[in-house]
Amino acid sequence: MIKIGIIGYGYWGPNLVRNFNGNKNFSIVKVADTRSERLNLLQKAYPLIEITTNPNDIIKDPSIDAVAIATPVFTHFQLAKTALENGKHVLLEKPMTSTSQEAEELIRIASGKKLSLMVDHTFLYTGAVQKIKQLIDSDTIGKVKYLDSTRINLGLFQPDINVLWDLAPHDISILTHLVGEKPYSLNATGVSHTSNDVENIAYLTVNFESGFIAHFNCSWTSPVKIRLMLIGGDNKMIVYNDLEPTEKIKIYDTGYDIKTDEEKQNLLVDYRTGDIFIPKTAPTEALALMAEDFAQSILNGKDTVSNFNSGLSVIKILEASNESIKNRGKEIIIK
Amino acid sequence: MIKIGIIGYGYWGPNLVRNFNGNKNFSIVKVADTRSERLNLLQKAYPLIEITTNPNDIIKDPSIDAVAIATPVFTHFQLAKTALENGKHVLLEKPMTSTSQEAEELIRIASGKKLSLMVDHTFLYTGAVQKIKQLIDSDTIGKVKYLDSTRINLGLFQPDINVLWDLAPHDISILTHLVGEKPYSLNATGVSHTSNDVENIAYLTVNFESGFIAHFNCSWTSPVKIRLMLIGGDNKMIVYNDLEPTEKIKIYDTGYDIKTDEEKQNLLVDYRTGDIFIPKTAPTEALALMAEDFAQSILNGKDTVSNFNSGLSVIKILEASNESIKNRGKEIIIK
Amino acid sequence: MIKIGIIGYGYWGPNLVRNFNGNKNFSIVKVADTRSERLNLLQKAYPLIEITTNPNDIIKDPSIDAVAIATPVFTHFQLAKTALENGKHVLLEKPMTSTSQEAEELIRIASGKKLSLMVDHTFLYTGAVQKIKQLIDSDTIGKVKYLDSTRINLGLFQPDINVLWDLAPHDISILTHLVGEKPYSLNATGVSHTSNDVENIAYLTVNFESGFIAHFNCSWTSPVKIRLMLIGGDNKMIVYNDLEPTEKIKIYDTGYDIKTDEEKQNLLVDYRTGDIFIPKTAPTEALALMAEDFAQSILNGKDTVSNFNSGLSVIKILEASNESIKNRGKEIIIK
Amino acid sequence: MIKIGIIGYGYWGPNLVRNFNGNKNFSIVKVADTRSERLNLLQKAYPLIEITTNPNDIIKDPSIDAVAIATPVFTHFQLAKTALENGKHVLLEKPMTSTSQEAEELIRIASGKKLSLMVDHTFLYTGAVQKIKQLIDSDTIGKVKYLDSTRINLGLFQPDINVLWDLAPHDISILTHLVGEKPYSLNATGVSHTSNDVENIAYLTVNFESGFIAHFNCSWTSPVKIRLMLIGGDNKMIVYNDLEPTEKIKIYDTGYDIKTDEEKQNLLVDYRTGDIFIPKTAPTEALALMAEDFAQSILNGKDTVSNFNSGLSVIKILEASNESIKNRGKEIIIK
Repeated sequence: MIKIGIIGYGYWGPNLVRNFNGNKNFSIVKVADTRSERLNLLQKAYPLIEITTNPNDIIKDPSIDAVAIATPVFTHFQLAKTALENGKHVLLEKPMTSTSQEAEELIRIASGKKLSLMVDHTFLYTGAVQKIKQLIDSDTIGKVKYLDSTRINLGLFQPDINVLWDLAPHDISILTHLVGEKPYSLNATGVSHTSNDVENIAYLTVNFESGFIAHFNCSWTSPVKIRLMLIGGDNKMIVYNDLEPTEKIKIYDTGYDIKTDEEKQNLLVDYRTGDIFIPKTAPTEALALMAEDFAQSILNGKDTVSNFNSGLSVIKILEASNESIKNRGKEIIIK
Repeated sequence: MIKIGIIGYGYWGPNLVRNFNGNKNFSIVKVADTRSERLNLLQKAYPLIEITTNPNDIIKDPSIDAVAIATPVFTHFQLAKTALENGKHVLLEKPMTSTSQEAEELIRIASGKKLSLMVDHTFLYTGAVQKIKQLIDSDTIGKVKYLDSTRINLGLFQPDINVLWDLAPHDISILTHLVGEKPYSLNATGVSHTSNDVENIAYLTVNFESGFIAHFNCSWTSPVKIRLMLIGGDNKMIVYNDLEPTEKIKIYDTGYDIKTDEEKQNLLVDYRTGDIFIPKTAPTEALALMAEDFAQSILNGKDTVSNFNSGLSVIKILEASNESIKNRGKEIIIK
Repeated sequence: MIKIGIIGYGYWGPNLVRNFNGNKNFSIVKVADTRSERLNLLQKAYPLIEITTNPNDIIKDPSIDAVAIATPVFTHFQLAKTALENGKHVLLEKPMTSTSQEAEELIRIASGKKLSLMVDHTFLYTGAVQKIKQLIDSDTIGKVKYLDSTRINLGLFQPDINVLWDLAPHDISILTHLVGEKPYSLNATGVSHTSNDVENIAYLTVNFESGFIAHFNCSWTSPVKIRLMLIGGDNKMIVYNDLEPTEKIKIYDTGYDIKTDEEKQNLLVDYRTGDIFIPKTAPTEALALMAEDFAQSILNGKDTVSNFNSGLSVIKILEASNESIKNRGKEIIIK
Repeated sequence: MIKIGIIGYGYWGPNLVRNFNGNKNFSIVKVADTRSERLNLLQKAYPLIEITTNPNDIIKDPSIDAVAIATPVFTHFQLAKTALENGKHVLLEKPMTSTSQEAEELIRIASGKKLSLMVDHTFLYTGAVQKIKQLIDSDTIGKVKYLDSTRINLGLFQPDINVLWDLAPHDISILTHLVGEKPYSLNATGVSHTSNDVENIAYLTVNFESGFIAHFNCSWTSPVKIRLMLIGGDNKMIVYNDLEPTEKIKIYDTGYDIKTDEEKQNLLVDYRTGDIFIPKTAPTEALALMAEDFAQSILNGKDTVSNFNSGLSVIKILEASNESIKNRGKEIIIK
């Protein structure tokens, strides 16, 4: 039984508590939050879990094996670093850290101490993304040509991170998970409707050397909620609508073949539209699978689906997007 | 009765013929197309209209008052110029010309000869866009903060113009029609999946000095057809879905108020979600209204809704988008 | 070339004219309508077709081979009878006649004179219904257990026939086409919101001896248009939404197996929900296929898909529905 | 603080426990279920609540004030009767009892002992139904002409009650709540695809003397889930789609006026389609409001929204529907 402490009981913390509580490999011993009213809520629902307003009571408790951190991003690095230094396995909410340098330092410490360091990119554990991964890996889709994601809604303005840092990690982690190729460069534009210069609408294009292109449209100021991803291959195309209760993925037997008619020196494009297939996707709660993946990593050294590499890739893209926005959309090469 | 000749009977020409034929102020005397099989189709449906494979038979026919041009873009300038020089009123399909210089020259000639020169931005005549215009002009929406458009489908690859030149004129003309402010700059990125370097997917962000932002997502390679525009004001927001048969416009009583809590030095954003209103929009065919607008311009010197100024604005944005794409997304100041 | 005359140029007549005009086996020689303003409209679009306000000018014209009748139902019998007696092949709009006795008399005359007598159940020629037919005939769906149809909208109140006679022929003809079993009995209820006792809302249940059941919900007074049919088999189930532009048919790999657990004396039902498949359906206009079917029947004696038997079956069900409504929903055995 | 015991911790029980637990006027002291595995689940989540496999431990416990009963319908009467006789206030899940005689006896006992007797028609507490009620009571909709409900899905076959008893209570309670007029008669038809003659598909038409008509389409064997209610008034019409996450109610400014043109002796119907309005509905959980309504009834003698009268009305309609189905759809006068 892994003894786990959870730091942060705000928006996402209750989901972590519920899922670690439901996992037979974990025992939640303590939860920390600086706000006592949040801890009161916790105690009503889980009278047997200890509470504290000081995260150090978790990080430095020698009886605790693992720590899950669901606090504002700017606190991630220091909390995770201290936890790792105290020999705890660490799960970080997305985005992993504020800078890629911080992420790299955490990875270095965790690797040196052979501790699990995982980032909670929950979407990688959904039935939908698992199915898409399988469709791409089995070459059903063919060579992937583009990924186009829209993730917009009337959302909470975050004071410290812009809309890309808030919403795009979901989609960038999916991109990284699905597509083997390393991104080459990116362009980002956006606008802030507040006085603090934090973008509430932003657009991100990620370029790849092969001609594959990915685009992300993120907004906190849309009257409607949209969670739509299009993935185009040269055999088939996928529409992934995360708001559909049961028909999340539609596979279109649609494509275009490009030929050059040499005689006529003309470009010929053959279109094809055909049947549509909606596979049943596993209904298991993604967060439950994530918790179990963390357990297996701690207990058996298993590689996790969502790992620090994808965590770092996401941060590198977000960091470069900051630079592009600051330089008014200029192309930034991704390191 | 205005005697009109129509050049080009391809994809759009039949719509022009049907609508000018149905307008009591026009009499179609001749239709030109270089392809005799297209002219045969015309004759079956309209046995009384003259046909010709030579556009000059229309442009130089002294009995003809007006010319509508629905040919590939690269031919627009020369055809329109000759027509104007021969004293004809001219209607051009979108996009108006290949360059802003050409557009400006046509405008100069038309103005000098006091001839009508109009660009067929059909969407400006739809009940939906007319209603949105009225909602903005009456200040129902409040100050407009963003416009976000997605226009994607499995579309014909054009050999000579990229997907922005093909699809975005609709949305850029709507933008120009709705928003008084001049665009300041733009960024465009895209990708070509063919060997001729014509982009089949492209993204365009148009920046305005006031903080208003417009974004356009265009693709010929989407398995699903989407025609969706979001317009956010600080009072209300509009979702315009052109594929909805009857509920094209939804007005959301949704907004966010941004305040700074000076004591706490914090940013406070108040959210509001409320009722939704779906106004009935006029069902009249847009092209019929466009034809009548052209007639009134010729007969009574009336200003047209879709005019050469919006035609030129669209070309300037498209031209700058070419330059931005060539410079890998660099910000281009719009002249 | 079959010389055809068309009687009735109201709501549906223009569709008939357009499709017979587009068929290479037909030549439309004359169109009749009692309203001269309708004939004026025709002449504008088709200047070469003769017009008349007297249907006898068509029925009794010896140069005419076939007659299509698109007039109010109560006139069908007399027009069709005279036409058949004058040796014309006859196409009748749905519903075929006002009574089954009339339908049977027309069938007798046509059979005696070896003339084609066809009813235009257009839906049988749609790609969607053809695909469903094929799914049932190939036993993909398994034993069909129910058919549930909703066909409602804000529709024209007909003065002479109720909403079942107006709307249900489409669905009943589909039922008859798909399911071999003869209906046993029916129950119908409805309400009239007008003073003329013509039902504007009506519900029809058709019972079959095998346990198969069909239900039809028809209304002229719905604020929304719905065209939805569910067909449940014991292997798979079909949802047919005729308003979907491209995804009209969805095949659900969904079912239930009923077992009796003898030990426990309990009923056990196993549920299964699985993948969904959306086949591409042929986009050809149904009416064009219907016209060609009529041509083949006249020229080559080929059996038509929509024939007088299905026409008669529809009338028998409608006739019995009248009786059930009059008897306040009582079960009526279908002859 | 009202001390409450809950009998039945199956499908619905956990929702009752969660909501009574969250209400400040209730304290859950005991939960009974015959299945110890269900009680184990309860204890994991609520370690402080007492458990028992014997409902009498609740009903006869003198320290308990109120009992909520969420067991199979056939057990409702005996449990509720004993509870009332032991001086407990009683909340019954829908449908209230197996017969109207039973319901009337419970009402008699509760009235005699001045105890609260309430039926949990949860839907009456939803923001959507509350808004519809208000639209009807304020005469916004005008005179209500019809109510048409479809409630179908792939559902659990109940061994003891048919699909009408399982699903229709929701819609019949809404009908009773919204419409003052007493139903006059009904017709019901259905089919059983199992050997135990329990209908899994059934159709119910309820007739009213004023010409108002209500129709209910219920099925356990639909591949898709539909929860759709249409309510037509002579001013406006409502579409209530309970599966819409935020736009549950749409109000259509649609109608038809019926006139008789005396001169022509013709029926004239004027159609009107206009704007659509989607009011924001309260997001509070319906069951929480129901629990509070029960509390206020016990503490302050307040009338409840969902009361034994609506419970009894539902049972009378269900009882008559049984008789109609048995008599093959014959009209049954509702007592």
